[in-house]
Amino acid sequence: MKSFEFLLPDRISKPRDSGLTMVLDKGLGLKNAESLMEISGEYVDLLKFGWGTSILHDKDLIKDKVKMYQSFNIKTFTGGTLFELACLNNKIDEVFEESKSIGFDAIEISNGSIDMGEDDKLSFIKEAKNNGFFVLSEVGKKNITKDKSISLDERIDAIKEEINAGSDLVIMEGRESGKSIGIYDDTGEVKLDVVNSIIDKIDVNNILWEAPNKNQQVNLVLNIGQNVNLGNISTTDITSVESIRRGLRGDTVGKV
Amino acid sequence: MKSFEFLLPDRISKPRDSGLTMVLDKGLGLKNAESLMEISGEYVDLLKFGWGTSILHDKDLIKDKVKMYQSFNIKTFTGGTLFELACLNNKIDEVFEESKSIGFDAIEISNGSIDMGEDDKLSFIKEAKNNGFFVLSEVGKKNITKDKSISLDERIDAIKEEINAGSDLVIMEGRESGKSIGIYDDTGEVKLDVVNSIIDKIDVNNILWEAPNKNQQVNLVLNIGQNVNLGNISTTDITSVESIRRGLRGDTVGKV
Amino acid sequence: MKSFEFLLPDRISKPRDSGLTMVLDKGLGLKNAESLMEISGEYVDLLKFGWGTSILHDKDLIKDKVKMYQSFNIKTFTGGTLFELACLNNKIDEVFEESKSIGFDAIEISNGSIDMGEDDKLSFIKEAKNNGFFVLSEVGKKNITKDKSISLDERIDAIKEEINAGSDLVIMEGRESGKSIGIYDDTGEVKLDVVNSIIDKIDVNNILWEAPNKNQQVNLVLNIGQNVNLGNISTTDITSVESIRRGLRGDTVGKV
Repeated sequence: MKSFEFLLPDRISKPRDSGLTMVLDKGLGLKNAESLMEISGEYVDLLKFGWGTSILHDKDLIKDKVKMYQSFNIKTFTGGTLFELACLNNKIDEVFEESKSIGFDAIEISNGSIDMGEDDKLSFIKEAKNNGFFVLSEVGKKNITKDKSISLDERIDAIKEEINAGSDLVIMEGRESGKSIGIYDDTGEVKLDVVNSIIDKIDVNNILWEAPNKNQQVNLVLNIGQNVNLGNISTTDITSVESIRRGLRGDTVGKV
Repeated sequence: MKSFEFLLPDRISKPRDSGLTMVLDKGLGLKNAESLMEISGEYVDLLKFGWGTSILHDKDLIKDKVKMYQSFNIKTFTGGTLFELACLNNKIDEVFEESKSIGFDAIEISNGSIDMGEDDKLSFIKEAKNNGFFVLSEVGKKNITKDKSISLDERIDAIKEEINAGSDLVIMEGRESGKSIGIYDDTGEVKLDVVNSIIDKIDVNNILWEAPNKNQQVNLVLNIGQNVNLGNISTTDITSVESIRRGLRGDTVGKV
Repeated sequence: MKSFEFLLPDRISKPRDSGLTMVLDKGLGLKNAESLMEISGEYVDLLKFGWGTSILHDKDLIKDKVKMYQSFNIKTFTGGTLFELACLNNKIDEVFEESKSIGFDAIEISNGSIDMGEDDKLSFIKEAKNNGFFVLSEVGKKNITKDKSISLDERIDAIKEEINAGSDLVIMEGRESGKSIGIYDDTGEVKLDVVNSIIDKIDVNNILWEAPNKNQQVNLVLNIGQNVNLGNISTTDITSVESIRRGLRGDTVGKV
């Protein structure tokens, strides 16, 4: 039972196909992460071990963290940069194997930092599906200039093709900073016209928007709805994001 | 005994009527919070379970967190948004009951997000006092435009009336961001002329200034004194704020 | 064994004379810090108990934290502000004694907040060496105006003299904010011409650059190399910094 449960508005519960919250773990200790999940794990659907961080950590410890997160019904995966490093080093099969051996449920396939042709990316998505993973693919470039060179039509086409290739969720790049990238302008505000153009052409439930900052979470919830898929949520903001979705924080009280 | 105790300047100790530090908990796990209190709990007077976050958390866990904080002589309460939600849902009596049943010492009454007349607010303050709570009431609107429409005289009158109605502490709204609101300008700097006009008319010990950012904490300490009441302090900044108060951080060395 | 170890690029390991990471602890609880070290302690060389924070904490608890960090082969020390407070209070010998009694390995000597002549500073450095400490000395003023009044030549001369006096590492002031100070401009960007002028005259391994923000860490790694010494790293960024050094994060993939 929740405290003040008579004030709790309903929301679809896990496992769910929309309203997903993906959290970014930058290297939490096991016990610290466990204490956090004990209070708020039910509000996390997907947990990303950020970029290549897990390469730096003890394998047994990562196994224990994966198991712990899964005990809260959370899907775990490594950041897209790890897959790009595999690509650069011709170790893609090894990454599929190691991910399974550690126990990861999902895999993220991106080309934000390296040159990877769209055809290659689509075949990697298929290969990941064939290996039994829940697949997230990411559209966007981490370099601001390169990211700005992608036209809106190209972005939409890429999303469509990746969904067709088997991607379960297409991530819209937002980085950890949330500025000057994808749907965000240089001050980190959401470019709603771009968002609207995208969801005009694509089922919004197939998209997960990286939204590291509060104003972004609020704007996406107010404009798309409480069950918008949000990603790159900081480990310190898990409860805050759920409160924004349910109208329990000032910014969305009475508006969702 | 403290380490380097011969360098420790005195400050009034808990329980105290001024120099209060109110900390904002956005959803810490119990064990993480306990470890933090073991090192710095003596520097926390009041602990707010931010806005409506506690509605999302397990009741037994919240009871345990409340007990844990109280074991460090800290008063606990839920955010003003929770009370506003109660108001919207006609559940005010239920909130008083549930707060007692969980063990909260205090209650915050605000009208930052909803339309609540000043008369209603004053009677809620009285009702909360009659229910035995330590009462904090908050003056200010979370919406920037609405907040700017409150004149300085209106702000001062509201503070006076709420104190007369029984409010133990009047909180000056600063939000979690500390920008474009109340005593802060658009860059988050303290508007000292506004602060001075307020404390010219009101006993400064009755006011608790939400001051989430370091420059705000430093400026308020330098201008009002080490025993200014500060609120919305991040859980990561508890020791920092105490060091600012005692002249143990660069910004206030030799100045307090 | 690491997870995805086949993707891990080598880097010189601890104990090392370059490529040092110095982390800023603002008051972590013992158990929280321990959980963090269990996953990432091998990437920390030096741990600073920030400014005067340890004066506020229980001596036995600080002893336990020091021991815990040392069990991960990390050198511990108190912030320069603590030494400056000792200076103001004529308690320098007492600080040497107390530091030894608690178990600190190192000591930081700075004059960022108080007026301390360069000659006095040099003799304190010698005294600290004679007391058996690993010595870090810091060049720069915490006050922006005062810091800007130091010419580049004066800065370089001070670094040279402090190294000659026995300083093991000279810290370039960056504060916790990383703006408008030392090598950083008002937006927090690295002034590469200043950096280059300094390392043109001084062995870069003798310098530790405070670099609290990600863009600073990335720029220093890209311009000086993966084994640049970095300081004032937040406890939440330990793994991130190591991933930047090794090319495991988007910003440095394929570039180090």
